[in-house]
Amino acid sequence: MAASAGPEIERLIGLLAKLPGLGPRSARRAALALLKKREQLLTPLAEALALAAERVKTCRTCGSLDTQDPCAICADQSRDGTLICVVEEVGALWAMERAVAFRGRYHVLGGLLSALDGVGPEALRIGGLTARAGDPAVREVILALPATVDGQTTAHYLADRLAGSDVSVTMLARGVPVGGELDWLDDGTITQAMKARRPA
Amino acid sequence: MAASAGPEIERLIGLLAKLPGLGPRSARRAALALLKKREQLLTPLAEALALAAERVKTCRTCGSLDTQDPCAICADQSRDGTLICVVEEVGALWAMERAVAFRGRYHVLGGLLSALDGVGPEALRIGGLTARAGDPAVREVILALPATVDGQTTAHYLADRLAGSDVSVTMLARGVPVGGELDWLDDGTITQAMKARRPA
Repeated sequence: MAASAGPEIERLIGLLAKLPGLGPRSARRAALALLKKREQLLTPLAEALALAAERVKTCRTCGSLDTQDPCAICADQSRDGTLICVVEEVGALWAMERAVAFRGRYHVLGGLLSALDGVGPEALRIGGLTARAGDPAVREVILALPATVDGQTTAHYLADRLAGSDVSVTMLARGVPVGGELDWLDDGTITQAMKARRPA
Repeated sequence: MAASAGPEIERLIGLLAKLPGLGPRSARRAALALLKKREQLLTPLAEALALAAERVKTCRTCGSLDTQDPCAICADQSRDGTLICVVEEVGALWAMERAVAFRGRYHVLGGLLSALDGVGPEALRIGGLTARAGDPAVREVILALPATVDGQTTAHYLADRLAGSDVSVTMLARGVPVGGELDWLDDGTITQAMKARRPA
């Protein structure tokens, strides 16, 4: 950074640059935008962050983030308690909720098994999942994990761990995404979509 | 946003999405990253923003941002007071300082003249510039404005306004940028570089 900006601005830029999606250059642009719009942006953001730091907590049941514990989804009696959807992170939970494709409960693992990154089962929220799956009210555990090597390794591991219990373990279908042009799809997706073909 | 996150998180995402470079999706990712790294990122950023809101002000001389007024550059007696470099925004000033290509003083216009956006001379810090250029100690005003239509319109307007004073008005050279492959350069740049060719 230029010595022309004070240490307060440099520190702000350094912190903004740690956000995913912002590099050093875009962090400078963001800092300038904040300083130009003090009343509309800078002060409200400072307050929103302080409030989030104070109020937002991790749900002890499912691992999601909310201002209440248990979170709004775990506390919502209208949701289907027989289904647990396992996701990697809260971002995936939000994506599922946006799709409005699922009205059961969630379980946030907090990551994926990864031999490369040295992430073992003890680093994930797996004990809580097996305990919840042991509840006789739960019928199905849906593994909504990414279709990556780590995602599939984790899915296989969880399927093994849950094999002894009475729940059925399922996973999301693989196939051509909505709007997917075959020409642009990778071979793996096409192969999976062909294998899993169904009557038209 | 999903109703699954509390209003505090939704508000945080909404504010982050207003930063340049972050859209609704990357704002969600940024909010999650902040909430996952409370001690290292969320709380420090909240404090840095609050501190910036409290301390950073606009220099009444040049229009730059600093915690002191006059800013560090205007107050620095070792800098050449005979040169004023006119820039569009503080971001451009920082870029000049990073390049260490200039040791005079600056004048931040706060924008560019734009017929399309309805920005007239009264919206820019032009009165301050003509006043500063009238100081007998000032010899040269360098227009370091972008090579865009609005940038050039503004440069012509400023050159006209400063024509009566004793300062010489200059602008940055146009030409092939460092590392610029001719094959990838636009015709305008090549034409300008050819016109302004000099002995090798």
